[in-house]
Amino acid sequence: MAENYLRLDTGKPEEQSMSDFKIDELCINTIRFLAVDAVQKANSGHPGAPLGLAPMAYVLWDRFLKHNPADSNWPDRDRFILSCGHASALLYALLHLTGYDLSLDDLKQFRQWGSKTPGHPEYGVVPGLEVTTGPLGQGFANGVGMAMAERHLAANYNRPGHEVIDHYTYAIVSDGDLEEGISSEAASLAGYLRLGKLIYLYDDNGISIEGKTGITFTEDVAGRFQSYGWQVIEPINGFDIGSVEGAISEALADKGRPSLIVCRTIIGYGSPNKAGTAAAHGEPLGEEEVSLTKKQLGWNYEGLFTVPPEVLAHLRKAQERGRKQQDEWQQKMETYRRAYPDEARKLEEDLRGDLPAGWDSGLDDLFGEETRPIATRSASGIVMNALAPRIRSLMGGSADLAPSTKTELKDGGDYSADNYRGRNLHFGVREHVMGAIASGMARHGGIIPYTGTFLIFYDYMRPPVRLAAMMGLRVIYIFSHDSVGLGEDGPTHQPVEQLLGLRSVPHLVTIRPADATETVEAWKIALQRRGGPTALVLSRQNLPVLDRSNLAPASGLQRGGYVLWEAAAAPEVIIMGTGSEVHIALEAGGLLQEKGIKARIVSLPSWELFEAQPAEYRDKVLPENIKARIAIEAGSPLGWERYTGDSGVIIGLSHFGHSAPGKVIYEKLGLTAQRVADEAENLLRGGEK
Amino acid sequence: MAENYLRLDTGKPEEQSMSDFKIDELCINTIRFLAVDAVQKANSGHPGAPLGLAPMAYVLWDRFLKHNPADSNWPDRDRFILSCGHASALLYALLHLTGYDLSLDDLKQFRQWGSKTPGHPEYGVVPGLEVTTGPLGQGFANGVGMAMAERHLAANYNRPGHEVIDHYTYAIVSDGDLEEGISSEAASLAGYLRLGKLIYLYDDNGISIEGKTGITFTEDVAGRFQSYGWQVIEPINGFDIGSVEGAISEALADKGRPSLIVCRTIIGYGSPNKAGTAAAHGEPLGEEEVSLTKKQLGWNYEGLFTVPPEVLAHLRKAQERGRKQQDEWQQKMETYRRAYPDEARKLEEDLRGDLPAGWDSGLDDLFGEETRPIATRSASGIVMNALAPRIRSLMGGSADLAPSTKTELKDGGDYSADNYRGRNLHFGVREHVMGAIASGMARHGGIIPYTGTFLIFYDYMRPPVRLAAMMGLRVIYIFSHDSVGLGEDGPTHQPVEQLLGLRSVPHLVTIRPADATETVEAWKIALQRRGGPTALVLSRQNLPVLDRSNLAPASGLQRGGYVLWEAAAAPEVIIMGTGSEVHIALEAGGLLQEKGIKARIVSLPSWELFEAQPAEYRDKVLPENIKARIAIEAGSPLGWERYTGDSGVIIGLSHFGHSAPGKVIYEKLGLTAQRVADEAENLLRGGEK
Repeated sequence: MAENYLRLDTGKPEEQSMSDFKIDELCINTIRFLAVDAVQKANSGHPGAPLGLAPMAYVLWDRFLKHNPADSNWPDRDRFILSCGHASALLYALLHLTGYDLSLDDLKQFRQWGSKTPGHPEYGVVPGLEVTTGPLGQGFANGVGMAMAERHLAANYNRPGHEVIDHYTYAIVSDGDLEEGISSEAASLAGYLRLGKLIYLYDDNGISIEGKTGITFTEDVAGRFQSYGWQVIEPINGFDIGSVEGAISEALADKGRPSLIVCRTIIGYGSPNKAGTAAAHGEPLGEEEVSLTKKQLGWNYEGLFTVPPEVLAHLRKAQERGRKQQDEWQQKMETYRRAYPDEARKLEEDLRGDLPAGWDSGLDDLFGEETRPIATRSASGIVMNALAPRIRSLMGGSADLAPSTKTELKDGGDYSADNYRGRNLHFGVREHVMGAIASGMARHGGIIPYTGTFLIFYDYMRPPVRLAAMMGLRVIYIFSHDSVGLGEDGPTHQPVEQLLGLRSVPHLVTIRPADATETVEAWKIALQRRGGPTALVLSRQNLPVLDRSNLAPASGLQRGGYVLWEAAAAPEVIIMGTGSEVHIALEAGGLLQEKGIKARIVSLPSWELFEAQPAEYRDKVLPENIKARIAIEAGSPLGWERYTGDSGVIIGLSHFGHSAPGKVIYEKLGLTAQRVADEAENLLRGGEK
Repeated sequence: MAENYLRLDTGKPEEQSMSDFKIDELCINTIRFLAVDAVQKANSGHPGAPLGLAPMAYVLWDRFLKHNPADSNWPDRDRFILSCGHASALLYALLHLTGYDLSLDDLKQFRQWGSKTPGHPEYGVVPGLEVTTGPLGQGFANGVGMAMAERHLAANYNRPGHEVIDHYTYAIVSDGDLEEGISSEAASLAGYLRLGKLIYLYDDNGISIEGKTGITFTEDVAGRFQSYGWQVIEPINGFDIGSVEGAISEALADKGRPSLIVCRTIIGYGSPNKAGTAAAHGEPLGEEEVSLTKKQLGWNYEGLFTVPPEVLAHLRKAQERGRKQQDEWQQKMETYRRAYPDEARKLEEDLRGDLPAGWDSGLDDLFGEETRPIATRSASGIVMNALAPRIRSLMGGSADLAPSTKTELKDGGDYSADNYRGRNLHFGVREHVMGAIASGMARHGGIIPYTGTFLIFYDYMRPPVRLAAMMGLRVIYIFSHDSVGLGEDGPTHQPVEQLLGLRSVPHLVTIRPADATETVEAWKIALQRRGGPTALVLSRQNLPVLDRSNLAPASGLQRGGYVLWEAAAAPEVIIMGTGSEVHIALEAGGLLQEKGIKARIVSLPSWELFEAQPAEYRDKVLPENIKARIAIEAGSPLGWERYTGDSGVIIGLSHFGHSAPGKVIYEKLGLTAQRVADEAENLLRGGEK
């Protein structure tokens, strides 16, 4: 290694032994200045938080955190989340120093193109990192999901004397995290669920970007968290190693409540001219101020990115410690496997994220005989309940709308502090944290989480959906009541732009099935899509179960879009639709046929899946030579031009909805077969759009 | 009037006089059953909340609320918000009974197409209604904005002995409101701001849709609100008129803190088979249960929508009372006008929402001499500070990002409990409530509010933006850091789909100006657009100030899109862009010109404004015969097909961003003039897309 682990004041390797106190201080300063140097070199980033946070982070990582730098996927590791993701450089320093696959050179590439050390911590990019953070409050909430997952797996799989799932979830959280509403939702739930193995260190530095937090944040944080049912340890001196150690021990001792340790710190600690001010937050200190800070903190090394060898030796003990801890766990697993071979096999299958053999058997016949109309939300509920007994890891819940979203697993039991085995989560009217908890559970592993709410309330949970897509997590979002078709609740509850919103999120797959049979296919996609989230967009209103004897099979959904029906091999007009408008399109096809006009009906439930098909397939479904095209969808028309083309017609909604029975709204807004047929005729007559 | 104000048990008009107690009870039951009958007739809606809420709502409206049913725009009326909007039928009953322009026939049209009584309360549709509610937590937060506006106007305009602005803001809030994170943000701010004239009645009925609230909501609500700095009066019997009256009086007496009155109630009160259960919440009771409920509550009238005449007589006293109150206020205003003619003129101007004469003078010259590149966020800050001294009513703030969003009004002062005159709001890291507070301020009147955050954090505040668009409120949203161009902060902070998201909201105008001069024009639009919100999408990075001597004037922005430059009168290719990509498009035009290719450069900063132009204008900017078209925008390509057409090319981003310097990202992702020029050449050669 070409890394400069020399004492630069002597030019020789450091040899003298240090007192414990001194080594602690030295480690802390090393963490601080790796972060500060990384920010300074990038000329971009946040030096203030690392300077203030380093002691508490060090104590946690050095004295408590159970982890193995050689295997960041070890299932029973403690989870650590840096919810204030802007302090990323601190985390990268810790990962490097404790021996993860992150070199000093990586640190030197902080915030550069293609580096393993991006501006905010990104899961999948930075080795050893649990979740992507940065947007405040998200990490706080993810941790609650992880702690919930741990309790669930422990309840399901641990046996007396066999605690194979037994770890803590830690986070460092900031003022900003606590100001965001999502953390209130998360804290309220965590308190209710008595998540005793959740321990958060709050970096109470009194400074945010606009100045002192006192300009807007004067609430009694301790009182607030006590009201949620948390143990609050406060206030401690966040720079005093003994205090931090004592507080974490106290938190560990309280098994019945989540813990918040309020650590008083100073942002930009050590910087003579910027400490304790907003100036330390979001920009490099400047070379001169870096020197002054190093001097003030007694850092005797010249040059940048210096790691004293004794620091490395001390912190890299994490490798040996971690190996031992994981070995012990492996032995525990061995014993467990012998005693409970079936449980062990299932646990390991779940942790790998594999679906059990035969998970999809019989699914295709679920609605084979169904002739009554059925809402796709109800069909989804039936599918879920068929899957639930086979797929143990499927669990989730709704933001107080389960009877409407049909997301209850009938025999799943309710998840609560008295029953962590329960598979039905009651999130309350808290959509935002619901999304983030699902991400935390997915990242924990062992669980395939789903959420449920009305599509309109996707607006309350956009940030976690985006982050799940960025992280590539298998989360299944069930959004029912997907259009004006929901009726009387009116425009406040009727989505218009939300479906487009889902489609616009990179790496998210959105599926709006046309009927019960497509709903089955949509669930198959969602479960098998290990590398990213899937949104299922479902109707409130009943929809006919399409009679497949005259139509293409529902399995066409697997390709995103498919020819559902056509009057003849050489159609004149293409009518495409999704979800609840597909049967209207089909009806229009019939009307046109009566007039001798040959239509092709395309069901296009998932744009993302369709776009992923080879060009030949797409051209086959939507042949270039057929310019007469109509799209019908009870939502924003934006984006449909991609499929209808210059000559096409889009029947959608570019305004808010109305309060009235759903059928009346469809009539009034022209979401009808007759309108489609009329537009088709008009197009073929060469009429004006 | 054909309305049935007869005692139906006797068939005669009711004449006997009632004791106070009896009339109270009768009024309450009338409210209850008007609501229940409306729900039953619509066969859709929420009967449970009205049955439980009616007493507290009645006491508030009958004993305290200062309002004039004849003039729902009276500026100094008390504001009343039904945050649990699903109890809409109760509010409609109150509005009818107290004499607003809402008839019994309107109530009978509950939840029907075109009626004045939609499923959830809609501002602009229902006479006398303050804000649209339904999505939980929003009304709670709107009220904070109203109370803030009241204090601000009072501080600015009241003079000793002349309290011309002096009213309360009341709301009824539910469990669901308190579970939503936004209410935590709102409550924390309201406590900090010591909004003593904010009084909320909490309908603590212990039931939500999935069952008892205890399945997920066990926090100590009183303790939590005390931690925020609220006066909490709890628990009182929400059915006991005297208790409710006493509690409101107590709340009025505490001038220094917002108040939460915890009213224990029973959902579906009186319904023998559904009271106290989730079954009472979201569907009609059923005709039989309605009868049983009426019987149980001693309602002796047959038939539906019955209003006993003594009830009407009692509640319509609100008309006389309101007229008197408003008369007194008018007299106060007269005296004030004589003593402070200038202040009175300004106050009335602000309340009308008019911009002061000369508000825009000199704006066009702000950047006339500017030759250095300047970020549009900075340009916006300069514009705002030029406007601020002239437009008194302009006030707002940022979610802890003011130094970055450049939204501080330099001489505005900070709004706080000690300085309600301050025009700079410090929202803290609370984007969601920021949006809802702005709506509350706009609805209050007298203020043109703006908000500020990074575009990525629009995701945290989607619900209030949508509702502001639905309500048609003049709110100005400033979103800076509008693309991957922000650089090192990386994908968690880089918007991709957010710009499209804004464009997809009906009735919202989104503007992404290309430079400082277009930023001036964008501000003009935003301020003059009285009937709806405007989003300004601004760059973090510096952008050249376009030299208009060779280009079309920036006033072209007023039409949404305009020809900025072209090489010749008959261009071969159209290159369009918005914001920070316009100068790249221009540069590409130059590159093409060097090759003898004639390009037209179109700046298209606002799709909504462009779509609102006559077809001839749009065709002139984007002539149908020019099929070679390129759009460049550092965001989701979705929707651009509308302008590029079947043969066009869209240079955008359909994936998440990267952490690196902004310029590097632009290079790596091909957001360059060279790429544009190459694509143009390729198109003209008839090459593959």
